[in-house]
Amino acid sequence: MHEHVELFRSIIEDLIPFNKMVGFKLLEVRENFVSILIPYRPELIGDIRRGSIHGGVIAAAMDAVGGAAAATTLKHETDKLSTIDLRVDYLEPGQPRDLITEATVKKSGSKVIFVSMVTYHDTRDKPIAEGRGVFSVTRTKVG
Amino acid sequence: MHEHVELFRSIIEDLIPFNKMVGFKLLEVRENFVSILIPYRPELIGDIRRGSIHGGVIAAAMDAVGGAAAATTLKHETDKLSTIDLRVDYLEPGQPRDLITEATVKKSGSKVIFVSMVTYHDTRDKPIAEGRGVFSVTRTKVG
Amino acid sequence: MHEHVELFRSIIEDLIPFNKMVGFKLLEVRENFVSILIPYRPELIGDIRRGSIHGGVIAAAMDAVGGAAAATTLKHETDKLSTIDLRVDYLEPGQPRDLITEATVKKSGSKVIFVSMVTYHDTRDKPIAEGRGVFSVTRTKVG
Amino acid sequence: MHEHVELFRSIIEDLIPFNKMVGFKLLEVRENFVSILIPYRPELIGDIRRGSIHGGVIAAAMDAVGGAAAATTLKHETDKLSTIDLRVDYLEPGQPRDLITEATVKKSGSKVIFVSMVTYHDTRDKPIAEGRGVFSVTRTKVG
Repeated sequence: MHEHVELFRSIIEDLIPFNKMVGFKLLEVRENFVSILIPYRPELIGDIRRGSIHGGVIAAAMDAVGGAAAATTLKHETDKLSTIDLRVDYLEPGQPRDLITEATVKKSGSKVIFVSMVTYHDTRDKPIAEGRGVFSVTRTKVG
Repeated sequence: MHEHVELFRSIIEDLIPFNKMVGFKLLEVRENFVSILIPYRPELIGDIRRGSIHGGVIAAAMDAVGGAAAATTLKHETDKLSTIDLRVDYLEPGQPRDLITEATVKKSGSKVIFVSMVTYHDTRDKPIAEGRGVFSVTRTKVG
Repeated sequence: MHEHVELFRSIIEDLIPFNKMVGFKLLEVRENFVSILIPYRPELIGDIRRGSIHGGVIAAAMDAVGGAAAATTLKHETDKLSTIDLRVDYLEPGQPRDLITEATVKKSGSKVIFVSMVTYHDTRDKPIAEGRGVFSVTRTKVG
Repeated sequence: MHEHVELFRSIIEDLIPFNKMVGFKLLEVRENFVSILIPYRPELIGDIRRGSIHGGVIAAAMDAVGGAAAATTLKHETDKLSTIDLRVDYLEPGQPRDLITEATVKKSGSKVIFVSMVTYHDTRDKPIAEGRGVFSVTRTKVG
């Protein structure tokens, strides 16, 4: 599993250019679950009057970490995953501080994977945003 | 209206740090409508195997342009706007090319503004993604 | 195509028990499009203070007509369809009057079908609600 | 609180005509939480080939119970509530058996209330569907 973690880290932090630009850092990966840290930088601000985080940062984090959680349920390197849809509920403005986004697989079916996401500063019980991602999966058939 | 356009341009292109990092450019603004260009850069890639645009770029563009379209229906400088929720349907993978995202206000009520968004390369009739944003508005009461 | 219409009518109006209980009537069916009438009955009321239609009536209509529109893109009797997710934006309270719900297929892919829906009294330009349905399809492979 | 429960029961089971037609029964109500039973009847079927529950039944239950949960956070009889949007993820086909739908308030703000819903047969850990409702609230100002 250690190499598995390093593979996920490398994909999330380095190999996906947009993730790298925003600055995602892998916190934890296990089957059905991935969490990432988004270290605060001034570039993440979306509302300068209130100093709050851009909703797009949170949506991007949810898409990235939701897809990564879905990927923990794949069985073959050639399996393919793509986002069908993404929904985000913005419960509170994001403060200019580090953010954590977690994704938990709710159902990993033969064709569709449902994932729920949450973004928070300190604890998941005080979420800034909650979301859902639905992913299409093409699973390699093994003869 | 010309100054109005320049104010929107300045907000969308320069004053919102995350928009600036992603590289949004204002194309058009009029009451109930805003469109932006997202010039292609390699940093926008989300899937290196397929070379497609990160879903988070599209979600971020939809949040930004949806909020800007909602803002065209505000009457006072002190009116406040925040995103309640955002939904994105990913119809096709985004090619490594320039993208346009448009937002059209569907209803601007006293408390809630509904906006629909579309992202495409060449024409809105061949969308890559379609979305919805719902925004909360606090309108200044004028005595 | 005439028998096709009558088959859809029979499915929508008679064979699906919940549709029949709510009272859906087929208006139009063609490839990528279905519309239904929901004749007003007092049982459809959801808010007695305001006398407005229950949001669940509109959601149910959107699910039913969205699935029917998706079904117009199937090629084989043994193809299977199921709803992945459904989203409804409630723009205006529904008056105690007849309602029309229309569904238009936005993309019919090999595994996923995206459909947009609208509910209105008089004209689709004055919608009461707009929605999205995403459907999973299992297409019969023909050797 | 006992009268409170009976008031909710009366509203959910008797006073809202569409709820009554579908047959919702109140199970539990407390601040931020409402659950209802949907006793199985053949009229609730949506797919006769598979014998599964109509997605519209589940969407209607989620709208009704989500609104009821939001209502537990109101302070005044004259406060007003309306559904802004509703989203349902269909994880599994609903069997032809009794269903339970629960709603939990995630945030009850001054203008917007976010509620999460789940529908299941036996236990919420095996959900058939999960959903979200966002409600607009007009709170009575008390001088």
